[in-house]
Amino acid sequence: MTDFAATRAMFHLPPGMIYLDGNSLGPLPKHALDRMAQVMQDEWGDMLITGWNRAGWMDAPARTGDRIARLIGAEPGSVVMGDTLSIKVFQALAAALDMTPDRRIVLSDSGNFPSDLYMAQGLLASLGRADDLRVVAPEAVADHLTDDVAVLMLTEIDYRTGRKHDMAALTAAAQAKGIVTIWDLAHSAGAVDVDLAACNADFAVGCTYKYLNGGPGAPAFIYVAPRHQATTRPALSGWLGHEAPFAFDLDYRAAPGIDRMRVGTPPILALAALDAALDVWDMTTMADVRAASLALADRFIAGVESQCDMLTLATPRDHAKRGSQVSFRFEHGYAAMQALIDHGVIGDFRAPDIMRFGFTPLFIDESDIDEAVRIVAEVMRGALWDTPKYHKRGKVT
Amino acid sequence: MTDFAATRAMFHLPPGMIYLDGNSLGPLPKHALDRMAQVMQDEWGDMLITGWNRAGWMDAPARTGDRIARLIGAEPGSVVMGDTLSIKVFQALAAALDMTPDRRIVLSDSGNFPSDLYMAQGLLASLGRADDLRVVAPEAVADHLTDDVAVLMLTEIDYRTGRKHDMAALTAAAQAKGIVTIWDLAHSAGAVDVDLAACNADFAVGCTYKYLNGGPGAPAFIYVAPRHQATTRPALSGWLGHEAPFAFDLDYRAAPGIDRMRVGTPPILALAALDAALDVWDMTTMADVRAASLALADRFIAGVESQCDMLTLATPRDHAKRGSQVSFRFEHGYAAMQALIDHGVIGDFRAPDIMRFGFTPLFIDESDIDEAVRIVAEVMRGALWDTPKYHKRGKVT
Repeated sequence: MTDFAATRAMFHLPPGMIYLDGNSLGPLPKHALDRMAQVMQDEWGDMLITGWNRAGWMDAPARTGDRIARLIGAEPGSVVMGDTLSIKVFQALAAALDMTPDRRIVLSDSGNFPSDLYMAQGLLASLGRADDLRVVAPEAVADHLTDDVAVLMLTEIDYRTGRKHDMAALTAAAQAKGIVTIWDLAHSAGAVDVDLAACNADFAVGCTYKYLNGGPGAPAFIYVAPRHQATTRPALSGWLGHEAPFAFDLDYRAAPGIDRMRVGTPPILALAALDAALDVWDMTTMADVRAASLALADRFIAGVESQCDMLTLATPRDHAKRGSQVSFRFEHGYAAMQALIDHGVIGDFRAPDIMRFGFTPLFIDESDIDEAVRIVAEVMRGALWDTPKYHKRGKVT
Repeated sequence: MTDFAATRAMFHLPPGMIYLDGNSLGPLPKHALDRMAQVMQDEWGDMLITGWNRAGWMDAPARTGDRIARLIGAEPGSVVMGDTLSIKVFQALAAALDMTPDRRIVLSDSGNFPSDLYMAQGLLASLGRADDLRVVAPEAVADHLTDDVAVLMLTEIDYRTGRKHDMAALTAAAQAKGIVTIWDLAHSAGAVDVDLAACNADFAVGCTYKYLNGGPGAPAFIYVAPRHQATTRPALSGWLGHEAPFAFDLDYRAAPGIDRMRVGTPPILALAALDAALDVWDMTTMADVRAASLALADRFIAGVESQCDMLTLATPRDHAKRGSQVSFRFEHGYAAMQALIDHGVIGDFRAPDIMRFGFTPLFIDESDIDEAVRIVAEVMRGALWDTPKYHKRGKVT
């Protein structure tokens, strides 16, 4: 069993704050400070250009990718880091469309994160296929796996409600119809057990600044199933995805394997912080984290529901159908969340009415939950949110 | 006049090393260590998710972009940071192709950095236009500005030879023919005076890990001329280029202005290091840097040519026709560069026979040049490079 007191001790958590927003930005792993200083001083500072070889910078995207592969049930050599999640969505979709020239439709759902839909819109417009994106309700996806669908592109866990798709079932159903699948693991990686290999997934993408605690704007990852790697055409064909980047040929030839999904020069400093953050996972297992996360979330739901009947649970109760976040609907959710933040419980708000809380045992324990419930009840029952200062909207993140 | 002893004091330079490779990776500005620690501890650590507003993370790409704009003659509000240079090339080219639907050809030259050509190949292949890239010799570009050319895409300064295109003349000639221009400033920004506004440039892109000293894999930038911003279609239409990212609409609507070229979540840690590095430019001017850089390069050329007749200058002598690097051709350039590095002079090698040295007065002075010349002469005249250990090729960067 994981020693979660030990994982908690690895994070810097501001005193007096109960941080239930690791689903938006994970907290700072303390040792990431030292790692960053070491990479900046001993590698960039002292090795300078030779760091690309001597410090192993050139292979960092694949090396860190393999550490993430272990957390999402991906085969070694099937995940590589770089860019942002939006760029990785573009890469995966462009590759998937290339595999399905005889079909037209990209199927997604209205619970997908908007940036994924935006990237699809941009790509399809570039291809003169602006009408080929079909967005249905999350619960209707299975019924829309029709013969005209080329690609099924979904985010496994809904960023608003925490509703979790059945990845294995939908992947199988899609593939039975000849549809290529892309799974966005933004709210899955580090939050729930994912088994890409067992699901026979085609492509997956994800970010690392949420449950993987890589820091604000940390690099994204992309997974390509080993069976597709040799034939995947990189639409974003940058030099570090070239078979021989330092031959400086004028013509692109894709690297063998997952490296072809690399594009430009890797972000070494950001990768250093992320790689440090991943050390936390050497102390636990995804199964332990998932089980403890569900227990914390259940405790929070029970506590809040027993005291705050103005809040309506938006997250499915069934463990198999939710991620590790819990969302409540409340008409004045924006103001209520501002008040909670002011009282030391940090969650976030998603329009139009979602109050969102994330639960990870890596740095949250039962006493945090009990204190959070007490504060939520105090704020909600006392209508402490109902003052002008909490209604004033700044830029929301 | 700039106090270059003061700028030099801002950098960490390993003792015993003469670093003439800032054109590949700039050295560490010492205060970037403190800035990074402060952003990690005080912002990420203590502010957590609220850092997006409280620490100004959300606006960092435009804020840092404006600091770079000043160095490349760009209008305020016309440069934004993010992604890698390869991705920015893709964005600019996709936008430029959108503006020229009646034309076919993307014209570039064989002196362009290969990744730019690769990205063009990938984009054009996606569009079913794989044959539309035309690559000519650098000196033949002006003669190929024909009526079928949609976009002229060039790197101003050749990464191998340091040969500099006449940006103003080529831009004017291209525009006179109805051709949209894209300039890659990889070896220009921070190295030579660039005046995008005066050149009436359409699009420009660049990286920040070379002469801008932002660190390994530092974020790239893109420039869009103010006259094009409102009509530029972002092919990489990510949520942070949306008019209202936090409305979470299902449909993309491009932000007004340069922000539409943003894609995903900005790399805050990497931007912190870069922004610190840009402080150095508050102590100097681009004109001072350029003048001093040319003087250093001339001193190096004169010294090397007077003592090493086996080295052939590949860089134009005319100041107006070169950047701030100096390259020599030598049949055994790879081994010779390894020997030089072993003797404390750090340049780099570019296939097939180019020995490349970069000159910036920000951290290089005349005594460095004289010592570098002494070592080059010692290594070349003594044929110290001609031992098996220097011929053995590792991965070259």
